[in-house]
Amino acid sequence: MKKKILILHGPNLNLLGEREPGIYGTTDFESLNWQLMDYAISLDMEPQVYQSNSEGDIIDKLHEARKEYFGVVLNAGAYTHYSYAIADAIKAIKIPVIEVHISNVFARDAFRANSVIAPVCRGSISGFGTLSYKLAIHALAEMPS
Amino acid sequence: MKKKILILHGPNLNLLGEREPGIYGTTDFESLNWQLMDYAISLDMEPQVYQSNSEGDIIDKLHEARKEYFGVVLNAGAYTHYSYAIADAIKAIKIPVIEVHISNVFARDAFRANSVIAPVCRGSISGFGTLSYKLAIHALAEMPS
Amino acid sequence: MKKKILILHGPNLNLLGEREPGIYGTTDFESLNWQLMDYAISLDMEPQVYQSNSEGDIIDKLHEARKEYFGVVLNAGAYTHYSYAIADAIKAIKIPVIEVHISNVFARDAFRANSVIAPVCRGSISGFGTLSYKLAIHALAEMPS
Amino acid sequence: MKKKILILHGPNLNLLGEREPGIYGTTDFESLNWQLMDYAISLDMEPQVYQSNSEGDIIDKLHEARKEYFGVVLNAGAYTHYSYAIADAIKAIKIPVIEVHISNVFARDAFRANSVIAPVCRGSISGFGTLSYKLAIHALAEMPS
Amino acid sequence: MKKKILILHGPNLNLLGEREPGIYGTTDFESLNWQLMDYAISLDMEPQVYQSNSEGDIIDKLHEARKEYFGVVLNAGAYTHYSYAIADAIKAIKIPVIEVHISNVFARDAFRANSVIAPVCRGSISGFGTLSYKLAIHALAEMPS
Amino acid sequence: MKKKILILHGPNLNLLGEREPGIYGTTDFESLNWQLMDYAISLDMEPQVYQSNSEGDIIDKLHEARKEYFGVVLNAGAYTHYSYAIADAIKAIKIPVIEVHISNVFARDAFRANSVIAPVCRGSISGFGTLSYKLAIHALAEMPS
Amino acid sequence: MKKKILILHGPNLNLLGEREPGIYGTTDFESLNWQLMDYAISLDMEPQVYQSNSEGDIIDKLHEARKEYFGVVLNAGAYTHYSYAIADAIKAIKIPVIEVHISNVFARDAFRANSVIAPVCRGSISGFGTLSYKLAIHALAEMPS
Amino acid sequence: MKKKILILHGPNLNLLGEREPGIYGTTDFESLNWQLMDYAISLDMEPQVYQSNSEGDIIDKLHEARKEYFGVVLNAGAYTHYSYAIADAIKAIKIPVIEVHISNVFARDAFRANSVIAPVCRGSISGFGTLSYKLAIHALAEMPS
Amino acid sequence: MKKKILILHGPNLNLLGEREPGIYGTTDFESLNWQLMDYAISLDMEPQVYQSNSEGDIIDKLHEARKEYFGVVLNAGAYTHYSYAIADAIKAIKIPVIEVHISNVFARDAFRANSVIAPVCRGSISGFGTLSYKLAIHALAEMPS
Amino acid sequence: MKKKILILHGPNLNLLGEREPGIYGTTDFESLNWQLMDYAISLDMEPQVYQSNSEGDIIDKLHEARKEYFGVVLNAGAYTHYSYAIADAIKAIKIPVIEVHISNVFARDAFRANSVIAPVCRGSISGFGTLSYKLAIHALAEMPS
Amino acid sequence: MKKKILILHGPNLNLLGEREPGIYGTTDFESLNWQLMDYAISLDMEPQVYQSNSEGDIIDKLHEARKEYFGVVLNAGAYTHYSYAIADAIKAIKIPVIEVHISNVFARDAFRANSVIAPVCRGSISGFGTLSYKLAIHALAEMPS
Amino acid sequence: MKKKILILHGPNLNLLGEREPGIYGTTDFESLNWQLMDYAISLDMEPQVYQSNSEGDIIDKLHEARKEYFGVVLNAGAYTHYSYAIADAIKAIKIPVIEVHISNVFARDAFRANSVIAPVCRGSISGFGTLSYKLAIHALAEMPS
Repeated sequence: MKKKILILHGPNLNLLGEREPGIYGTTDFESLNWQLMDYAISLDMEPQVYQSNSEGDIIDKLHEARKEYFGVVLNAGAYTHYSYAIADAIKAIKIPVIEVHISNVFARDAFRANSVIAPVCRGSISGFGTLSYKLAIHALAEMPS
Repeated sequence: MKKKILILHGPNLNLLGEREPGIYGTTDFESLNWQLMDYAISLDMEPQVYQSNSEGDIIDKLHEARKEYFGVVLNAGAYTHYSYAIADAIKAIKIPVIEVHISNVFARDAFRANSVIAPVCRGSISGFGTLSYKLAIHALAEMPS
Repeated sequence: MKKKILILHGPNLNLLGEREPGIYGTTDFESLNWQLMDYAISLDMEPQVYQSNSEGDIIDKLHEARKEYFGVVLNAGAYTHYSYAIADAIKAIKIPVIEVHISNVFARDAFRANSVIAPVCRGSISGFGTLSYKLAIHALAEMPS
Repeated sequence: MKKKILILHGPNLNLLGEREPGIYGTTDFESLNWQLMDYAISLDMEPQVYQSNSEGDIIDKLHEARKEYFGVVLNAGAYTHYSYAIADAIKAIKIPVIEVHISNVFARDAFRANSVIAPVCRGSISGFGTLSYKLAIHALAEMPS
Repeated sequence: MKKKILILHGPNLNLLGEREPGIYGTTDFESLNWQLMDYAISLDMEPQVYQSNSEGDIIDKLHEARKEYFGVVLNAGAYTHYSYAIADAIKAIKIPVIEVHISNVFARDAFRANSVIAPVCRGSISGFGTLSYKLAIHALAEMPS
Repeated sequence: MKKKILILHGPNLNLLGEREPGIYGTTDFESLNWQLMDYAISLDMEPQVYQSNSEGDIIDKLHEARKEYFGVVLNAGAYTHYSYAIADAIKAIKIPVIEVHISNVFARDAFRANSVIAPVCRGSISGFGTLSYKLAIHALAEMPS
Repeated sequence: MKKKILILHGPNLNLLGEREPGIYGTTDFESLNWQLMDYAISLDMEPQVYQSNSEGDIIDKLHEARKEYFGVVLNAGAYTHYSYAIADAIKAIKIPVIEVHISNVFARDAFRANSVIAPVCRGSISGFGTLSYKLAIHALAEMPS
Repeated sequence: MKKKILILHGPNLNLLGEREPGIYGTTDFESLNWQLMDYAISLDMEPQVYQSNSEGDIIDKLHEARKEYFGVVLNAGAYTHYSYAIADAIKAIKIPVIEVHISNVFARDAFRANSVIAPVCRGSISGFGTLSYKLAIHALAEMPS
Repeated sequence: MKKKILILHGPNLNLLGEREPGIYGTTDFESLNWQLMDYAISLDMEPQVYQSNSEGDIIDKLHEARKEYFGVVLNAGAYTHYSYAIADAIKAIKIPVIEVHISNVFARDAFRANSVIAPVCRGSISGFGTLSYKLAIHALAEMPS
Repeated sequence: MKKKILILHGPNLNLLGEREPGIYGTTDFESLNWQLMDYAISLDMEPQVYQSNSEGDIIDKLHEARKEYFGVVLNAGAYTHYSYAIADAIKAIKIPVIEVHISNVFARDAFRANSVIAPVCRGSISGFGTLSYKLAIHALAEMPS
Repeated sequence: MKKKILILHGPNLNLLGEREPGIYGTTDFESLNWQLMDYAISLDMEPQVYQSNSEGDIIDKLHEARKEYFGVVLNAGAYTHYSYAIADAIKAIKIPVIEVHISNVFARDAFRANSVIAPVCRGSISGFGTLSYKLAIHALAEMPS
Repeated sequence: MKKKILILHGPNLNLLGEREPGIYGTTDFESLNWQLMDYAISLDMEPQVYQSNSEGDIIDKLHEARKEYFGVVLNAGAYTHYSYAIADAIKAIKIPVIEVHISNVFARDAFRANSVIAPVCRGSISGFGTLSYKLAIHALAEMPS
């Protein structure tokens, strides 16, 4: 059976391509999602994509994912740095959640060097542009189902 | 006239019983709510239960409560530790809000030792498992209406 | 062509007039909005008002505003002090956003002296009661369209 | 067999009723103890009351309690905020100790927001006036002996 | 009777136009003052302008102002961030003092995010270039004399 | 009627003259007390002296003092820097308590620069050697009885 | 020969009586100085009084004092909390300088609990109202000339 | 031409398999290197492996790499958390360096949550066991040469 | 003449064997003391043992020791981490005091990594179980009398 | 044309030779200035010397210097550690300013390890006694005019 | 079979006798090692001594020791305070490592009060001069082989 | 006899000219050394140059220098900010060591504002490009041999 995976984008990622292209690149959000879908399918997985600017929605989605999905690729955007509620959700569900960041969060504002969700994620990948997502999908593909 | 009270659960509490049972116990969320309802009714109060993972919803619910309810039993989950917006809502409404926690938040991660809503709640109860909620209901029952 | 501006109110501002009148004054929320609308119209602008207690909604609204509006007057309430997600949204859209506060946030609780959105706003105005909003509208009126 | 419980008051509580009545209420210390005794007896327990201003005495008393008592209701007064020695004593004895505070310690001086004994107590109750003690007695009554 | 107002500039503002024009703009100090005078007069007030690089002078001027002036528009320059003596002077005189900054002080060096005079000023305006001063004058004009 | 005053010495002060004479001087404890008694008597007051190394004893003594004494001269020794329990006792009794230190506590170890009892004392005197005590007695003499 | 002493007042003390009378009392500055002069003369000393709002002036005055005066009574006002330059001046001159404060600086704003000049003063007196100055004059009178 | 890459292991990694297997896994160091070599070769790259416990050696190796290699996969071990000298070396050479960690460094000791080399690396990958290295090799393979 | 030494145990050590045996071992308090007595006697010293839970008692005992004893072996328990009063007592007496801890205090709670008495003790020994005491006795035996 | 340079001394430097000679040496202020003048002349420059205890004066002097002088040698005394206003003045003028200190400021009080003017000076020299000034003059001589 | 032990000295210990004799004593390094060898032999152990100024060498040596030695006496010099790499090495090898310091590190510079290797050592001994090493050897001798 | 001096370069300085030329300039390492040698010879000294990326090597070299050299010019690179071991070496040897930095370390990353070796160096020079080294050589030339 194919692994179902959820690619979950947090706040402001819908503006990708438009927002600070020097940091986030020029790929627009829709294209990114097509690429990620393609890549996941090429690794024989069944991907789904979701984006929300709302902390509560992201938590709801993580809860839903716990039954149906093999794992989650999560870019929590700025919630990364203070949402203990999302961190609790990740800890509560047992499937692997992989933290990704497009930019090198450590090389930017001081507050971005701190991730409150990193301690509860299976692994963390940041700084590779949109390739960060692919490496995370690759990592899920490698995990024994 | 009977006192109406609101039992308000914050993020991830819907997963009770499933989430870290070593810390939160094995009672599931639905059973807990039945028990709390029963207990409140036995003290001659009219309880209502609400759960949301969204900070905004919790604030909306607190606002609504200010007109119809005698008081609120609030487990704000992880929002406890950073939601100044919920704290402002509690301060804005004049009915008593009682903070409860199932686990002993002080004996866990460092960030959990800090509650931003505690200073604006009438009282705080933590560490008694689901009994924490009952003690809070008891406390509301004891307050002069 | 008239400048369209968005007056965006964050959490708990809907309780204005009712909530800590010693700090926030006795003008109620609806009257305030009528006054602000009038004032903006008198400066030949086309104002719209929106309030939400939800961080996600405020981000959504800021995103929408980026295409249709000339600028935003934002009172982010308590989100001012921790919502890096709203700050990212402000940075992502290119129209000017002006931070306003009714009270002198610096003269109150220590946590209120810190604004995480101030660094990405065009300017900040606080402490003038509801006049703070009018000064912000005035400032938008003065900016070259 | 009846549960024996110890109600242990720390420094300055003997001045209750006289000391800052705006914060601690006007009930005097002796009346409080009579009420607590009555309440515990009504729940079919055997209460004893002890007060001391001395950290060493409180530790001695906790040590003694470990053999004869079912549990302890402890208001450690200001020792709450720095007595790691009392915290060690609580950890050393195995019976449940419940932390109580009359006032909402979180809403007062900054140093009062930190309790060094909370992490080793079974539970914590604060802010309900003298009702805090009753809720703690209630909690002990509910625990399986 | 016309309102007399004092426009008080602190250290290094005399170099305006010459100093870091990327941050402070290219308007020179003299022109700025003529513009502010004109604006205040147009609002039917009687403005006076004073600049000093000396903390003591600024305090002296604030003391003098307390008898003759309706209010003060103060750009305290770098003293903003450490002069508790100026803050005490503002608190000692009872007329309204409005803090202004040309640049968005929050978006610059970390030490500039802290204002020791903000808590004692009536209101704060920053980030609008020289328009900041005009908004402050506007605010004084709106206050009941 | 003569004012009764209590001169209360905290931990290690009994070793005066013997302990670090470079800091505390060579006057021995007994002589100091005779001098202070004489001085107080010369100002027409009725002094009593008490020393204890125990935090609990000092609190007990402060409680006793609240009924019989006009005021207290307190050198709390090292308890100055962490005994919130003594601070609470001072706040609980209503008679004036004056904090004294023989040495200039601010010029020594960093931890000595902080006094937790200073905020609740009527006044503070430090650095004058044994003259510190006399100035405190003088101050009590000046206060209206 | 009579001891010459300098009573040196820092910023905003000239507004005494007018400024926050709840904290600083209602004695006006001129009367205070007459009282202090009288008191010093009664102790057979030759007092001089000086006030300035300027840090530089206070340093100049301390330098001058080092040759002609026996000692200085210094109320450095808000400079107390950050003027390392005044602290250096006190250290550079060898005559005793006594720090005084009218109010209990420890019981007010957090920043007022720290004195950068205390470590280099001979002694410190605070919280006794204008009596603080008299105790300092008394202390100078007691020091061997 | 094939891309040459350097797999650079820092202190204590030579004990892999033997050292805290609960955290670092049971694969021994030699096998790991064979696997990584194989993987890199399969992606058509020319890998070399080097391990040293010495900070100076690691810097020397990074300097050498700047001429001959396409990129570096670096697990700097504990030097990650304090070696600003290694960070400077990474910044000085212009080829991409990718930080890897076997364990989830964020979920362990507090000091491990801080990486001083992350800000100067192209990207960071942690928490995937030995797969972390493979993802990094994958990332180098994807970068345009 | 034989060296008299005092073995001084602080709070909760009387519960040894019973309290957290995983950390403190299973030797009970009485046996430990017999072993230490024997060991000291074997090194030709005259030992005495004292335990108290009270900070004041420990200070009293240290004062008494200064005349009769050659040195002190002190396990101050949790007072180690905050009793500046005990630290002052150690400094005041001139005989050598050796700090011992049964457990490796550095490997436990963060607050235990700080000892306020270490800076004034002659030496510190921790982590060897009850052997820590013997090493301290050994050290006193080696010191020239 | 000769380079004009300004040697600018801040607070308390006029007491050189008299003030803490162990730290600042025994050369008096006037001799120092003669030596510095001679040295500058020998390097074919036109020196001027100025000293003030006032922060405002130092800023005024820096402003004046920007038109006529090639560069400034500045010993800002204690203002080094907190005068952001002097730092702003240095940044505002474009001529090179070189920070000098007679003593090794890093080896003294903790607050002296921080210089708020260092980031805006061209270079910093400290610890060489009066030679520090000469090295600074040397440096100005070496800079291309 | 005899226990083999390694006495491992870190940076600058080779200068013993020459370096700050007030703190480290006058015994030179070679004599110290002879004494320690003798002492270990007298306790029937087989000692080896090694010194290096290099962090990497110390790690290499600890790795080597894990197979052949019973335990290690380690004076890591200044690396004690920041070498997490040495700490990791100690944790990785399973033989007991005992931390020693000649001086009382807690009574010196603030940074010396923190040991990053203490939490992973079996025990810690400091402040007894060269006797510290002997106590550590004694401790190894007492441990069951 | 000529003074022998050691010019000691720390980590990454060998890449000079190649590494961040905007900060470190374009002079390459070899040329720099020839210039420094020439300059030292012109001042009648006998210079030697050494560079290492290894902390241990730098310490070894400083130890060697203590017998043969008059003084050391040390650019410790990034070790400046954390190598307490190098600081100890400087303190242990008695010859003067002068700290130099090419760039203005105070105007760069926050961690670079702190030098752990500055307190033990004779003097510090930073920000003058390669001239910093020459000023240090000049300073050694001026010191009495």
